[in-house]
Amino acid sequence: MLVATCLVFIMHLGFATLEAGFVQKKNVVNILYKNSMILCIGLLTYCIVGFNLMYPGADYAGKFFGFAGFGLAMPEGAAGAIDYASGGYTYWTDFIFQAMFAATAATIVSGAVAERIKLNAFLIFATILVAFSYPITGMWKWGGGWLNAAGFYDFAGSTLVHAVGGFAALAAVLVLGPRTGKYFSNGKIKPIPGHSMPLAAMGVFLLWFGWFGFNGGSVLSADPVSVSLVFVTTSLAAAAGAMGAFFVSYIMFKTHDLSMVLNGILGGLVGITAGADQMGPTSAILIGLIAGSIIPLSVVFFDKIKIDDPVGATSVHLVCGIWGTLAVGIFGQMASLQQLWIQFYGVMAVGAFTFVFAYSLMYLLKITIGVRVSEEEEIKGLDIGEHEMQAYSEGVEDSSFQLSTVD
Amino acid sequence: MLVATCLVFIMHLGFATLEAGFVQKKNVVNILYKNSMILCIGLLTYCIVGFNLMYPGADYAGKFFGFAGFGLAMPEGAAGAIDYASGGYTYWTDFIFQAMFAATAATIVSGAVAERIKLNAFLIFATILVAFSYPITGMWKWGGGWLNAAGFYDFAGSTLVHAVGGFAALAAVLVLGPRTGKYFSNGKIKPIPGHSMPLAAMGVFLLWFGWFGFNGGSVLSADPVSVSLVFVTTSLAAAAGAMGAFFVSYIMFKTHDLSMVLNGILGGLVGITAGADQMGPTSAILIGLIAGSIIPLSVVFFDKIKIDDPVGATSVHLVCGIWGTLAVGIFGQMASLQQLWIQFYGVMAVGAFTFVFAYSLMYLLKITIGVRVSEEEEIKGLDIGEHEMQAYSEGVEDSSFQLSTVD
Amino acid sequence: MLVATCLVFIMHLGFATLEAGFVQKKNVVNILYKNSMILCIGLLTYCIVGFNLMYPGADYAGKFFGFAGFGLAMPEGAAGAIDYASGGYTYWTDFIFQAMFAATAATIVSGAVAERIKLNAFLIFATILVAFSYPITGMWKWGGGWLNAAGFYDFAGSTLVHAVGGFAALAAVLVLGPRTGKYFSNGKIKPIPGHSMPLAAMGVFLLWFGWFGFNGGSVLSADPVSVSLVFVTTSLAAAAGAMGAFFVSYIMFKTHDLSMVLNGILGGLVGITAGADQMGPTSAILIGLIAGSIIPLSVVFFDKIKIDDPVGATSVHLVCGIWGTLAVGIFGQMASLQQLWIQFYGVMAVGAFTFVFAYSLMYLLKITIGVRVSEEEEIKGLDIGEHEMQAYSEGVEDSSFQLSTVD
Repeated sequence: MLVATCLVFIMHLGFATLEAGFVQKKNVVNILYKNSMILCIGLLTYCIVGFNLMYPGADYAGKFFGFAGFGLAMPEGAAGAIDYASGGYTYWTDFIFQAMFAATAATIVSGAVAERIKLNAFLIFATILVAFSYPITGMWKWGGGWLNAAGFYDFAGSTLVHAVGGFAALAAVLVLGPRTGKYFSNGKIKPIPGHSMPLAAMGVFLLWFGWFGFNGGSVLSADPVSVSLVFVTTSLAAAAGAMGAFFVSYIMFKTHDLSMVLNGILGGLVGITAGADQMGPTSAILIGLIAGSIIPLSVVFFDKIKIDDPVGATSVHLVCGIWGTLAVGIFGQMASLQQLWIQFYGVMAVGAFTFVFAYSLMYLLKITIGVRVSEEEEIKGLDIGEHEMQAYSEGVEDSSFQLSTVD
Repeated sequence: MLVATCLVFIMHLGFATLEAGFVQKKNVVNILYKNSMILCIGLLTYCIVGFNLMYPGADYAGKFFGFAGFGLAMPEGAAGAIDYASGGYTYWTDFIFQAMFAATAATIVSGAVAERIKLNAFLIFATILVAFSYPITGMWKWGGGWLNAAGFYDFAGSTLVHAVGGFAALAAVLVLGPRTGKYFSNGKIKPIPGHSMPLAAMGVFLLWFGWFGFNGGSVLSADPVSVSLVFVTTSLAAAAGAMGAFFVSYIMFKTHDLSMVLNGILGGLVGITAGADQMGPTSAILIGLIAGSIIPLSVVFFDKIKIDDPVGATSVHLVCGIWGTLAVGIFGQMASLQQLWIQFYGVMAVGAFTFVFAYSLMYLLKITIGVRVSEEEEIKGLDIGEHEMQAYSEGVEDSSFQLSTVD
Repeated sequence: MLVATCLVFIMHLGFATLEAGFVQKKNVVNILYKNSMILCIGLLTYCIVGFNLMYPGADYAGKFFGFAGFGLAMPEGAAGAIDYASGGYTYWTDFIFQAMFAATAATIVSGAVAERIKLNAFLIFATILVAFSYPITGMWKWGGGWLNAAGFYDFAGSTLVHAVGGFAALAAVLVLGPRTGKYFSNGKIKPIPGHSMPLAAMGVFLLWFGWFGFNGGSVLSADPVSVSLVFVTTSLAAAAGAMGAFFVSYIMFKTHDLSMVLNGILGGLVGITAGADQMGPTSAILIGLIAGSIIPLSVVFFDKIKIDDPVGATSVHLVCGIWGTLAVGIFGQMASLQQLWIQFYGVMAVGAFTFVFAYSLMYLLKITIGVRVSEEEEIKGLDIGEHEMQAYSEGVEDSSFQLSTVD
């Protein structure tokens, strides 16, 4: 479990490099800053309020909402935690593992709204999302709430983490609007390539690496058969996701599109997340293949309807998150029409809450402090505008080092 | 074991960044694409056919070839795997750990043939190599085949993984020929520096990190003494490899050559891999020191005979793989003249099979679909030629964002 | 413990990318070379002499100095290690975990002296520091020496690793002097921005990741309550460090300074290291918050007194290392005025020894082989001067590939 926590932590580096790679050179500091801050804010708010909103305890079983009070409940020091150590993991392990998850939802949003959102607006939005919205819907299932009672299944968060991040991203993008110059009135779309494919590829490999912890740790025990099966299904779905994205994008664009294959891997991973412990290898491959195939279609679709998402977060996390949730009712040990309906019902309920919450919050920010940087700042880049620095520097010019300038 | 699987996984990121760093800027997307795809293809083919070719079961003990049927043998779902859980690891763990190894051999090839091979030809070559050649020679030792019966020892794959990758790379390079403009008729050699040393260095550190899993996990149990000894020998050999490459390259080139030190670390790691559990610290240091010392000599030698290997894969994996295999007969608990002979015999047998297989396959591809991109494409770069994109983008020009273009 | 060793290993990649990101483009190969070599040299010297200086055995309990002889004491091979396997970890585990720590101190120095130190001088300095100075002061506490007897507490090395590295860095910088052109006689300071913020950010995330091993492994057992508590305190202190640096730097500079937030995270991690197992969540947050707040003040202060540290290593490791050591006497289970005094006394004793050792050594190198590259080399960059290569290459020009040059 603690190893899994480390691995989930490294997903935040994966998101940071992935998103940094997919944005333009002039907005790289901004995305690194946002992702560093979100991780830290997420950990702290989850400690203060989120953990107790998400796991309010047995009194709130089957409910919509519960709260166990501010801060971590245990007395300080190691001694107090010992009683909790039944069941294979401790209170502290539980907290830190869940806390690493919590910041993920906000990080998903950060990619979708990149290159034009005001830093302050984003930080406030993300803080409130992680502190309240994510734990409330998380409680519905993992905290023993009403969706859990209804038989909804979400092993490691296709809905509770990824679709939540995706719905919040969609709401935020709708309020925010596309990047200046992305869509033309004549229907043309300007391609805005990411500034560094090595960073993006590194991000995907790190996310896959972290996903072993995300899914493997969600077994919530060290049962070797379950954990190892989850490793196999996770890996095969990711690999099949790459294949699906490769086939479909090659047919669509007649070229080997690296971005699509990378997002296909992520799509496969998101897709298997809801049922990673319920599937055999063949089902895992099919789920991943379909998830990967959806990616190029979804990316083109969102661009058609002018929803501008620089990193493809809505395609990966929202669309494949929904697909993965439904797949639990189609493949594997739980497959049944009734389960499929419950899965659909669950992801829609969580999605509706999250979308309304995120849209309202973003709208409120828009009419108060404003959510978009000025067009001038957008053109110059947010690195200069918000941070007064650049991601890459050529170094101080040689001439300035001449002796004459020293004394 | 599962942690080791994660670590072996991260070696694929290490290979991707190492190879991306050592190629020219215009071929970076291509190498990232190849390495992403190979990992995914490798996992899937190993699931469908490779695993059952490599571990056909006790019926084929001492044989040259065996096959246990297509797909994973176990019934779907976690229940079926439980019986296998004796001996400290499960069927699933076994599969996923071995599958992570399998793709490594093809990845080694991808660095050596970089910057001029056709993408389709490479993908077909790599798929067939991973699906058939690698598991067949792997079965000879790890699957209980004839080399195992003969007393051949290869702890974690100096021969079965690294020399296999190296022999296949050598065969592929021989069919493919050097990069255009690399060697002049007057004997001069054009240095073609890699485009990013930070990426290359990152790759080496990640590979070292992953090697803890590669070697540590190959103990195939959690016996703390064996695993920790393997960690020590692995680390000391890597460190000594750096020293060896440093000394020899400094004498040869009178400069501190970062590429040599980085490849020296890898050489030390490959060298210790065959006997990491058989050596004490002093032997490990000597093996690494010799492996590292070989690297600059080998790199210069291959360039002399016009074998063009942009990342030094043949020096690292083939030469040091052979050295490490032999070292088991020279150092450590198994040292004896007879063992040395068996080691030599084993690596040559595996090498002959792999070389003939790879050479024939590559030649077949050459006379059918062709294996080299056009000279024009090679000059422009494979990123544009095969992928229609570039690894690094400066961002959309400011002028295009002017208001007039928006409506 | 072995997983922790892997994680501590990855800290060396973190230091390499962090320092590479914070230096100028023309010195990147140099910093990568230094950090690769230091890790390898550190492992080997620790094997030969350091381990036995640091853990001389029970005979030297309460003493200032002890030595158990050269090399690793155990007979070669796995068999000899078995007796040692009591207490949950083996002799080999103990060695490799400690060896990974040892190279850290020298790596801290490498960032502070970057961009103007002679490579040979640095390598000699670092080798001697790791071989003698680090283990001697380490023995005072962790080897059962006099500071241990005095009741000094340093859980995972706020003093023994970080402040030691920081004091050595301070001494080295004082002998070496600032980079040419950094400080003007009129009091102006030239900002010299790092060449790649993505590399720097990656370094910080990797260091945090590694810190789980650094602190988690220092529990020296797999007691799940202690280890998981340490994970929580470590993460919360890092997150609070980012917040502290954010608040203070925003007030000071009126901008969102990514470097400060990144160094704030590191400051929080260094700060919690001495007492990670003694604190509850609230104390951890306070310690991190103060550590992070110190960072911008300390960076500005060192620049004011013309101590030129390109990566902020003295602020992060020295200042926050001292703060973290003292914090054990202020917060948590051990808080008392007496303990605070012992903590102060301990860090000053270790600091005095290290500073005098490092200053003398650096001074000796200065008057013998020289420690600074020529001003000309400094301006052209150490990559060309010491390594005859560049970190980034645009690729061989197209024209040189024309057919006429081939034959």
